[in-house]
Amino acid sequence: MSKDEVILLDFWVSPFAIRAKIALEEKGVEFEAREEDLLGNKSELLLKSNPVYKKVPVLLRNGKPVSESSIIVSFIDEAWPSPPFLTPCPYERSVARFWADFIDKKLFDAGGKIWRSKGEELELAKKEFIEIVKLLEGALGDKDFFGGEIFGFVDIIAIPLTSWFYAYEVFGGFKVENECPKFSAWMKRCNERESVAKYLPDPTKVYEFVCMMRKMHGLE
Amino acid sequence: MSKDEVILLDFWVSPFAIRAKIALEEKGVEFEAREEDLLGNKSELLLKSNPVYKKVPVLLRNGKPVSESSIIVSFIDEAWPSPPFLTPCPYERSVARFWADFIDKKLFDAGGKIWRSKGEELELAKKEFIEIVKLLEGALGDKDFFGGEIFGFVDIIAIPLTSWFYAYEVFGGFKVENECPKFSAWMKRCNERESVAKYLPDPTKVYEFVCMMRKMHGLE
Repeated sequence: MSKDEVILLDFWVSPFAIRAKIALEEKGVEFEAREEDLLGNKSELLLKSNPVYKKVPVLLRNGKPVSESSIIVSFIDEAWPSPPFLTPCPYERSVARFWADFIDKKLFDAGGKIWRSKGEELELAKKEFIEIVKLLEGALGDKDFFGGEIFGFVDIIAIPLTSWFYAYEVFGGFKVENECPKFSAWMKRCNERESVAKYLPDPTKVYEFVCMMRKMHGLE
Repeated sequence: MSKDEVILLDFWVSPFAIRAKIALEEKGVEFEAREEDLLGNKSELLLKSNPVYKKVPVLLRNGKPVSESSIIVSFIDEAWPSPPFLTPCPYERSVARFWADFIDKKLFDAGGKIWRSKGEELELAKKEFIEIVKLLEGALGDKDFFGGEIFGFVDIIAIPLTSWFYAYEVFGGFKVENECPKFSAWMKRCNERESVAKYLPDPTKVYEFVCMMRKMHGLE
């Protein structure tokens, strides 16, 4: 389709990098994913491409870097317009951006509190996490996807984070399916898509990664 | 131009509400600003329109609410396309979004640490704040505005926050002009614009507001 050189600075378990991979796959853009060694040996290209945060993902299109995963997904949507991730309606776009931003601000941090906490703090973290997912379930409503019938912007922003849910469930002692059945059904629907099935890591591998993180943080 | 009913749920000193007012003014959109009483007596309309955060600004266009100021500015740009706040180039748009997001994540919180801190903590807060403004100065470079020759998206996101700088300078004992002369020159350029001059509050009024906040927080 294009002669673009598209490189993604990647880390397999990063839900933020997965957003970019799903978005590129949905657009049919060929790319090279370069796995970064984030524990103390980041590549020169990463440090040079994202000097402010020094984090993955970074998308390089013909050498030009784009950072911050939600911005990368917007960039992919605008650089390769078909199929679009957002409707043309300004109001609906603002609703999609609101929920994408809400997910960015709340979901991963709330999940992180679950595997970092114990006792009363863990109970609070669990309650907060479930409240966030319930709000998202409310935004989803009875629709197939956040934007309606078509897998789009908010779905791409949200679904990669769900690969960490199994780990949250194990450490929190709860089931998202019991708390938020409609959200859980949306997760299943998304997982039937090729782009999602291809790039979402096995939840048990994510769980093992979280166990390693807990050891590194002196929590086990 | 339009028969739209446009209402902004506002608070005079909120830099986030000011973003919306400048954006509407730049587009030539008539609107009604409704001042909210944020200290314990928020309007039913605010609570109903922004149930997730219950914060200003909220923009209502014909009754449909949009929340979160950066999303409001994007909505205004897409709902009233002329003059555009962003270039059509996907890469340049991603660069603008990166810096707007950086400002959202860093600048106001860093300033807040200055007026909330004392002693060593204040020194650290000041250092962090100046580093953030220096990064923005680097992004501005030798351009007139963040996007080049035209006042646009990042300028609208950034300039309202500068109305709090005088308060930060007084409590932090520094001058942005001495630390970041190019950024300071950009502030002056923006202040020459009608939309900015019309809606940016007097920095000494913001300072008085911050003094009141410090008293409320038991800091004076």
